[in-house]
Amino acid sequence: MAHKTDIEIAREAQKKPIQQIGDGLGIPSEHLLPFGHDKAKVSAEFIAGLNGRENGKLILVTAINPTPAGEGKTTTTVGLGDGLNAIGKKAAICIREASLGPCFGMKGGAAGGGYAQVVPMEEMNLHFTGDFHAITSAHNLLSAMIDNHIYWGNALEIDQRRVVWRRVMDMNDRALRDVVTSLGGVANGFPRQAGFDITVASEVMAILCLATDLEDLQKRLGDIIVAYRRDKTPIYCRDLKADGAMTVLLQQAMQPNLVQTLENNPAFVHGGPFANIAHGCNSVVATTTALKLADYVVTEAGFGADLGAEKFMNIKCRKAGLAPSCVVVVATVRAMKMNGGVAKADLGQENVEAVEAGCANLGRHIGNVKSFGVPVVVAINHFISDTDAEVQAVKDYVETQGSEAILCKHWAKGSEGIKELATRVAEIADADVSNFAPLYRDDLPLFEKIETIAKRIYRADEVLADKKIRDQLREWEAAGYGDLPICMAKTQYSFSTDPNLRGAPTGHSVPVREVRLSAGAGFIVVICGEIMTMPGLPRVPSAEQIMLNEAGQIEGLF
Amino acid sequence: MAHKTDIEIAREAQKKPIQQIGDGLGIPSEHLLPFGHDKAKVSAEFIAGLNGRENGKLILVTAINPTPAGEGKTTTTVGLGDGLNAIGKKAAICIREASLGPCFGMKGGAAGGGYAQVVPMEEMNLHFTGDFHAITSAHNLLSAMIDNHIYWGNALEIDQRRVVWRRVMDMNDRALRDVVTSLGGVANGFPRQAGFDITVASEVMAILCLATDLEDLQKRLGDIIVAYRRDKTPIYCRDLKADGAMTVLLQQAMQPNLVQTLENNPAFVHGGPFANIAHGCNSVVATTTALKLADYVVTEAGFGADLGAEKFMNIKCRKAGLAPSCVVVVATVRAMKMNGGVAKADLGQENVEAVEAGCANLGRHIGNVKSFGVPVVVAINHFISDTDAEVQAVKDYVETQGSEAILCKHWAKGSEGIKELATRVAEIADADVSNFAPLYRDDLPLFEKIETIAKRIYRADEVLADKKIRDQLREWEAAGYGDLPICMAKTQYSFSTDPNLRGAPTGHSVPVREVRLSAGAGFIVVICGEIMTMPGLPRVPSAEQIMLNEAGQIEGLF
Repeated sequence: MAHKTDIEIAREAQKKPIQQIGDGLGIPSEHLLPFGHDKAKVSAEFIAGLNGRENGKLILVTAINPTPAGEGKTTTTVGLGDGLNAIGKKAAICIREASLGPCFGMKGGAAGGGYAQVVPMEEMNLHFTGDFHAITSAHNLLSAMIDNHIYWGNALEIDQRRVVWRRVMDMNDRALRDVVTSLGGVANGFPRQAGFDITVASEVMAILCLATDLEDLQKRLGDIIVAYRRDKTPIYCRDLKADGAMTVLLQQAMQPNLVQTLENNPAFVHGGPFANIAHGCNSVVATTTALKLADYVVTEAGFGADLGAEKFMNIKCRKAGLAPSCVVVVATVRAMKMNGGVAKADLGQENVEAVEAGCANLGRHIGNVKSFGVPVVVAINHFISDTDAEVQAVKDYVETQGSEAILCKHWAKGSEGIKELATRVAEIADADVSNFAPLYRDDLPLFEKIETIAKRIYRADEVLADKKIRDQLREWEAAGYGDLPICMAKTQYSFSTDPNLRGAPTGHSVPVREVRLSAGAGFIVVICGEIMTMPGLPRVPSAEQIMLNEAGQIEGLF
Repeated sequence: MAHKTDIEIAREAQKKPIQQIGDGLGIPSEHLLPFGHDKAKVSAEFIAGLNGRENGKLILVTAINPTPAGEGKTTTTVGLGDGLNAIGKKAAICIREASLGPCFGMKGGAAGGGYAQVVPMEEMNLHFTGDFHAITSAHNLLSAMIDNHIYWGNALEIDQRRVVWRRVMDMNDRALRDVVTSLGGVANGFPRQAGFDITVASEVMAILCLATDLEDLQKRLGDIIVAYRRDKTPIYCRDLKADGAMTVLLQQAMQPNLVQTLENNPAFVHGGPFANIAHGCNSVVATTTALKLADYVVTEAGFGADLGAEKFMNIKCRKAGLAPSCVVVVATVRAMKMNGGVAKADLGQENVEAVEAGCANLGRHIGNVKSFGVPVVVAINHFISDTDAEVQAVKDYVETQGSEAILCKHWAKGSEGIKELATRVAEIADADVSNFAPLYRDDLPLFEKIETIAKRIYRADEVLADKKIRDQLREWEAAGYGDLPICMAKTQYSFSTDPNLRGAPTGHSVPVREVRLSAGAGFIVVICGEIMTMPGLPRVPSAEQIMLNEAGQIEGLF
């Protein structure tokens, strides 16, 4: 039997009017700002009125280090949400919005897959409710105001060589990475080296995802460091008086978006910060709102647990006062095999030995997550090619780690295929056994925070950083930024900084190439290895195949 | 008594749910895609179903040459729509969407004023329904695909010096006018001179406003010339296979937006092409849809009648098969005085003589518009400082021109203040006296088309163009573009190309500086004088005052 594609399944969805989905959560329709018939924003007024209500249980879905085999983290997040509802629980899902640019490069959506999807998936992968466009506008308004300030006399004495605020565009456009602006003579300003990042890499995106309300948003925007003077003193967004107008541009974008799963369960899709130079989780506003409205909230974090879950715990939970009741680590037999040394082309053949060898990667993630004081369950996201013996090998291994692994078939069967996991997760969450604590204290020196993450999560022997970087960290401590958490930027493919080092490496070093202060978002980015903040398009961009068919449906986007 | 500001009046609006506004036009609510409770897009399916219905009467609102005194063209368009409804007619309004960028530079909205406004005005001046963001994305996708094509081997042999497709941003950012892209080495491509225009200046915007449906949109996008080879043969958007994905990005933006006036009458707000390098009218789709749903449709064209009405007639009406039944020329006593030589500071004093002297400008516009075969009425948009003698002077003058002038107080009184004009306009439209024809035939040589406009509309003696320009026009004729209409780009402040030459100058010359082919939009841009396609911010941008107040309302935007 030929399987249906994700888009074919999504098109057959029996969507309910979004007001009905909101009604199920107790949101009156006057507080749902509709965008079409199947998307809505939840009003800030309604959210403010939830204050004081009890929170539901927060469940984090994370994963092993990603491999080209695919893990299905979003699919499992959606599936688990549907599963919890199917067993009679009131559950909501919180995931990130998709970036538009990459959709025109390589295929791939961000709305789950198979029978565990969020709809309308086409719109979620295009303009959606315009949040990313608003972020682009707010970011670039600040950029324009910086050059405009210099143009009209530069009263703030901005050192034109030290403008650190770039411009953004939600597009894969390598030509914009490194540009010279303000050419063409007097009327166009002072030429200087500049550049563009993709919108998801904007600090404005990270701020929107961490801000608790509009007031906090404006304060954080004001805190952004845009440039330095010749004496290296910082110039803030607030000094340019851009924070008010940026807040106006983001007012609507700050309201979380409500959509639904294929099974008509509520999903909040809001914010989408890069998981490398930012923290990679959906917005705090969406998560805290969902926790007031549902008994169980299933959310996810970008990349593998060493990056995504670590930042979720140490940045998002710390800052927002959240604590997960249970963590689900997604693994697949195929990914275990790849971690065990099997090439992608050979994944179709049974290889229990390779599965067992690859399980070391999973084992370390389980241990790491447990070190935050939270209980762990493993979800084996089932592929048709998996054999019983391979699945059993994963289950047996996880048992040796003091956890349990549950086979899930939500991709093929929707909630029906994930009820066992849902039941177990609900039991664990209800048992209140979680004793969450971040990995390091706020007052630990910045370099020691980096060492803590490197040694306890990556299991590295040492952190390598030259004097310039250590001095920079000390300067920030002296300037009052010492209690910020660390936002690690490294490859997602390995515990180490070498993307080819699979499994569970030890004895390695973590070289720090660069550190950056995100004073508005409130973290220090520590860059280990290359970091790409503006992707390019491939030789044959998927844009060439994207078009409307005769029925007016979108083809080629997925 | 202190007058209320536009925003104060707008905030007091008793808006009806947009479904109710749609219902009044016979649009079922399933064909209204809501954006919040007060904005909606009309589905393409519904629009397609209107085919074959009879058209209502089209009424164009245009104006004398703008002066710093202000004319109130949009205000009069909105007021006249309300006035027609108030006298029992079924009327709709069609205006353009506002550009976001300029709102952060100088104050000023695009939704009318006083008691003749369209609401929600804040959102109309910010992201609205995201149409401009979609245009920005579609435009820049094509830009990225051009550089990406060159990067991956340049199979089409694009001459990197002859890339004519720039990038766009909806922001006043002079630093982006002239840039060098693709710096930074091999991974970032081949450095070249490039630049950004503001989004409203994009050919994609002009195309969206002239396309009749999605199929026509995609064809026109494909027709865009993006670059030339060394042998000067053109490379089209279609050659890069970008037209399909651009159409997908614009699918929703092609659907006209429905909002309402303060008096709850329907207003279509859709498209906003620059009135200098484009034709400056709202979308053909919105106008033709409104004509199927209402008995009277009031629309406007950018700048004064010499530019806006001329292009409305010769480009929009020609291309869309439209014909206005009546044209309203808006004039003010203050603007007549300025045309008569009075300085802005002295406008408050009665000066009948100056009014009479300034009327020459109005008279010529009346004559010009009549030359298209359409009847003309003058609307005197009343200001509190106008004296009875001054108003009478305008009325008397207009009578000598074989037309009539009617005093309108819609700014202060809404529809109540403009019933006389509404009644007269309806009478004229119902009398079917219009005998519309464009000014020149499709098959007239391009240079003769330019001469026709310059001599018959601007009343110039001659058109000055060097050999290079005349050769270029002949080349385009040979390439099959000879039957395109002309899109003039010149100062809006004078009939001549000298912005200081007010009144009704004669004997002047029209120097053509440059000609550009917009093969997708389907016109040839003829540039006379400087043309600014990317504005800058002023010394103190209004962005510095824009912010949310404690009630969460937007301050400083208007």
